[in-house]
Amino acid sequence: MNGAHALLATLRANGVTTCFANPGTTEMHVVAALDDFNDVRGVLCLFEGVATGAADGFARVSGTPAATLLHLGPGLANGWANLHNARRARSPLVNVVGDHATHHGALDAPLQSDIASVASALEGWVGRPTRSDDLADVTAQAVHAAYGPPGRVATLIVPSDVAWDDLSSPPTTWPVLARDVLRAPDEAQLRRALDLLRTKRAALLVGGPAVDAEQLDLAARIAATTSCRVVMETFPAITDRGAGVYRPEHLIYLSEFAIAQLADLDAVILVGAKDPVGFFAYPGVASRLTPAGCEVVTVAPPGTDTAAALSYLVDGLDAPTLGPEAGERVDVPSGELTSRMLAAAIGATMPEGLIVSDESTTGGLHLSGATRFSPPHRWMTLTGGSIGMGLPVALGAAIASGGRVLAIQSDGAMMYTPQALWTMAREGLDVTVVALSNRSYAVLEMELRRIHPDNEGTPSARLLELDHPAIDLAALATSLGVPSVRVTTADELVVALRRSYATPGPMFIEAMLPRGIN
Amino acid sequence: MNGAHALLATLRANGVTTCFANPGTTEMHVVAALDDFNDVRGVLCLFEGVATGAADGFARVSGTPAATLLHLGPGLANGWANLHNARRARSPLVNVVGDHATHHGALDAPLQSDIASVASALEGWVGRPTRSDDLADVTAQAVHAAYGPPGRVATLIVPSDVAWDDLSSPPTTWPVLARDVLRAPDEAQLRRALDLLRTKRAALLVGGPAVDAEQLDLAARIAATTSCRVVMETFPAITDRGAGVYRPEHLIYLSEFAIAQLADLDAVILVGAKDPVGFFAYPGVASRLTPAGCEVVTVAPPGTDTAAALSYLVDGLDAPTLGPEAGERVDVPSGELTSRMLAAAIGATMPEGLIVSDESTTGGLHLSGATRFSPPHRWMTLTGGSIGMGLPVALGAAIASGGRVLAIQSDGAMMYTPQALWTMAREGLDVTVVALSNRSYAVLEMELRRIHPDNEGTPSARLLELDHPAIDLAALATSLGVPSVRVTTADELVVALRRSYATPGPMFIEAMLPRGIN
Repeated sequence: MNGAHALLATLRANGVTTCFANPGTTEMHVVAALDDFNDVRGVLCLFEGVATGAADGFARVSGTPAATLLHLGPGLANGWANLHNARRARSPLVNVVGDHATHHGALDAPLQSDIASVASALEGWVGRPTRSDDLADVTAQAVHAAYGPPGRVATLIVPSDVAWDDLSSPPTTWPVLARDVLRAPDEAQLRRALDLLRTKRAALLVGGPAVDAEQLDLAARIAATTSCRVVMETFPAITDRGAGVYRPEHLIYLSEFAIAQLADLDAVILVGAKDPVGFFAYPGVASRLTPAGCEVVTVAPPGTDTAAALSYLVDGLDAPTLGPEAGERVDVPSGELTSRMLAAAIGATMPEGLIVSDESTTGGLHLSGATRFSPPHRWMTLTGGSIGMGLPVALGAAIASGGRVLAIQSDGAMMYTPQALWTMAREGLDVTVVALSNRSYAVLEMELRRIHPDNEGTPSARLLELDHPAIDLAALATSLGVPSVRVTTADELVVALRRSYATPGPMFIEAMLPRGIN
Repeated sequence: MNGAHALLATLRANGVTTCFANPGTTEMHVVAALDDFNDVRGVLCLFEGVATGAADGFARVSGTPAATLLHLGPGLANGWANLHNARRARSPLVNVVGDHATHHGALDAPLQSDIASVASALEGWVGRPTRSDDLADVTAQAVHAAYGPPGRVATLIVPSDVAWDDLSSPPTTWPVLARDVLRAPDEAQLRRALDLLRTKRAALLVGGPAVDAEQLDLAARIAATTSCRVVMETFPAITDRGAGVYRPEHLIYLSEFAIAQLADLDAVILVGAKDPVGFFAYPGVASRLTPAGCEVVTVAPPGTDTAAALSYLVDGLDAPTLGPEAGERVDVPSGELTSRMLAAAIGATMPEGLIVSDESTTGGLHLSGATRFSPPHRWMTLTGGSIGMGLPVALGAAIASGGRVLAIQSDGAMMYTPQALWTMAREGLDVTVVALSNRSYAVLEMELRRIHPDNEGTPSARLLELDHPAIDLAALATSLGVPSVRVTTADELVVALRRSYATPGPMFIEAMLPRGIN
C-alpha cells in the first residue's frame, strides 16, 4: 500500500468521493490507485479551470468538498481563476496538486516551480507532506480545513515519491477529523442590530449561507415587522429563488447605482455578507458603498451561524410568520429574441428544482424579474468576478445533484473554459446550456464608453469585439460532443428549452441576441 | 496625459510595440490609450494563456519582448502556464497586469488577490508602481529586466488609478534604459573544457542561444576535430534545422534512455544548456542524467556569450571549417497515415524559412529525421513542459515574423488553448496547423502502463482516453473561424499542406492517426 492509496482512502473516509482530474506524470500513481477505489469517481477534464470550477459547483450545491487532481505549478495556475471564485464563494474544496519527487525538486527540472506561492495566493490552506507515512494525516487536515466553516480552498501538494512510496505500516483505519461547528453570533452586536432595526433606517445585507429559502424567510419577517430593507449581496454563491421564496432587493453591480441604492440608510446589518464595496474603483466614485455616517454592524461574519443570528432578530422583534408573496409566472414569449424575451423564455419554461449557473453578465439583466414566480429553483453566480465559471460550475453542480442544471452563459466568458462541454458529454450530464451570443464583450464596451465616449471604429473599440470572425458557438459545442441548436426567435428558444428539459443528457442552445447590451 | 499614456509611450520607446491583450475593467484606460498609439499593435486573445504563449513565441522568433495585457490575479494565473514555458525558454516578455486602484485594494473587493505572489513564482521581475508619475520609469525597468540577458518574464502590476491619473508634469522624452550585454565566458572553465575535449570522452551539451545555425556549426567543427559528441538539450526554445545545418544528437526525453545515452561520458561541457536532469523522477531511476564521476564544466551559463565560448574552443583546437552534411530530402509519402508518414509528409513539403511550433508529443517521434534535409527552417519546442503552448506560440511567431508558421499539435495538448485559433483567423495569420488526432493522452498512457501494466478497461485507463466522445477538431477550428480539413491518408495530408502553404491565412488540418503511440 503506497501513499496514493493512503490519499484516496483518507479522502473517502472524510467524505470526499469525487475527483475532477487533469493529471500528468507526477500524478500517475494516484491515477493508478483509482482502480482500487471504485466508489471514488474520477471525472476527466480537458483543462484545469474546468476541474476547479466543477469542484466549486459541486461544493455550492452539496456543501461537500470534491477533490481536484492537478499537475504541478502550471496545473494549479490553470485552475487558479476558478479557485478564486470558489474562495469567494467560500466553497469547501480540496486541490490535490502533484509535484516532483522530494529528491528531484532541487534539480530545477523543466516543470519545477514554486507551487506553494501560487497556492498561498488563494488565502486558504496549503500543505505539502514529504513522507508517505504522513500523507493520510495531512490529507485529513486538508479536508478539515476545506470544510471550515467558512469553507475554503485547501491545496495539498503531493510530491510524486510521497505518492509512490509504500507506507511503512499501513494503518487499519484512516484519520477522520471532526468538523468545526459554526460559531454563535455575537450577542452584543445582535442587541445593537435590534436597536437599529427598531429606530433607524436600516437594511439587512444578507449573503453567504443566509440566502437560502429558510433564512430569506426570516429576513422577510424582520422586514415586515420593522421598516428595514433586505438587500442581497451582488454575487451569492447559491441562493433559493422562485415562487414561495422571499425575494429581497439585490445590491446593484455598478458602484454609482449601488451608492444611490444605499444612500438613505442610517445602518447596515451584515448577515453572512461583507461590508459592501465597489466591484471596481472608478475615478471620482467612492469605493465604499454605504453613505458617510451609516453604521455597519456585523452580526454574522463568515463562519458564524447566520440562521441563529436571523432567528435571534426575529425573536427579539416578535416578528410573525408570513405567507408567500402572490404573483404569476411570466407568459411564454413570442417574437424577436432580445435579452428580455430570453429571460421570459427561461422563466416560462424552467422546471421545479432546476439549478442555474448564471454567467450571463449583461445579457442576463432581466432574468431575476422573469423567474420571480417560476417554480422554486437555485441560482449560482460569479462570486469572484473571474469569468469562465459558468460551464464548469454547471458541470460540478450536475454531478453533485444528479438533476437538471441550466447554464446561462455569455459568449465572451464562455470562451475561457469551453472544454467543460466535453466532460458534460462524456459523463452524460443533464445540463442545458443557453449561450447568449451578442458577439462582444458588452460589459467592457460599456466600461470603455464611460471613459472614452466617441470611440466607434477605433482600435480600442475593435479590441472588445468578438465578431471578426463570429464564433459559431453551436458548432463549437457539437465539436465537443454536445448536441446543439441555434435559435433566433423567442419561440424557437422556448421549444429548445422544453425539448432539452425532457431529454436526458446535455444540450447546447445558442441564442442569437442583438449585438451589445439590449 | 495619464499613466496609461506613459505606459504605452515608454513601452514603445523601449521597442515594445505588440500587446497581446485580454483586458478587463481595470485595464480600460490602457485600452483607451491605444487609440493614441497607432504603431502599438493590440492583439485580442480570448483567453490569457493564448496571450502569454503568443508573447513567448513572439520573443523566441524576434528576440524582442512583446507585452501582454491581463486582468488582475485571475488573468495572470490564466496566463501563468505559458509564462512558465516562456521562463524556461528565457524569453524576454513584459506582462502588464491591471490591479484595483491603490485606494481600493485594502477593501477586499471580489477580484482582489495577491497578484505579486502569483507573479513572483515565475522567478523573473515584478514591479508595482503606486503613482502615475513613476509609471514610465518602472516600465523602462520592466523592459530592461525582460531583456536580461538572459531573457525573463517581467510582470508590471498597474493599479487602475496609476493608469488613469494624469501625470503632474508630462516629460518631453520617455526613459530608455541601455540593455545589459552578454557576459564573457569564464576563461578558466574554457581552458578546462579544452583539456577535456582533447583527452576525455566528452560531450558538448548545447542549448539556449547556442543552437542557432552558426553556433551549431562551431560545435560541429569542435566535434570533427576532437572525438567529442554534440548533444542538444531536449527542449530548445528555438533552433535552426534542415539542409546545411549541423544536426547534433538530441538529449532523449525519458530518463532511462537519456542515462544510457550519456553513460560512457567522462565529461560534459555545458554551453547555454543546464546540467541535465530527468524531466520527471521515477522510482529507482536516477534524477541526474550524467554518470557518476562525469565531470561537468559550465563554460557558458545563462546570460553568457555562448558564441564566444564556442569560438574560443574552435580557436583553441584550431578546428577547420566544414562543408555541409550531404543528404536527400525525404520522398513524398503515400498511403496509410501513421506518425512516420505524417513526419514524411511534413518533411517533403515544408517551404524554406518555415517556423515550426512543435507540441506534437508522442505523435512527433519521427519529425526530426524526416525534416533533416528539408529546406532550412526554425523549430520551437515545449520548453517548460506545460502543455498548451503550441498554438499560442505559433500565433506569436507568425506576428513576429510575418512569415509562414507550422504548428504541429497533439490533440490532448491543443485542448488547453484552442482559443488561439480564433486570433489566428482574426489577424489573418499565415499559420498552418496540423493537429495529430490520436484520441488519447498517449504519453500518459505510456507512463501509466509503466507502473500499472494490466490496466485495460480500468477506471485509470479510461481517465486518459479522449474518445468518449471523440473531439471533432476540424469542426472546432471551423467554429473559431479557421478553415479546416480532415485527412486520413498521407496523400491527403500532402495535398492539404501544399495548399495551405500556397494560401494566405490560417488553415487547420486534422490528421487522423491510429490511437495511442504508433
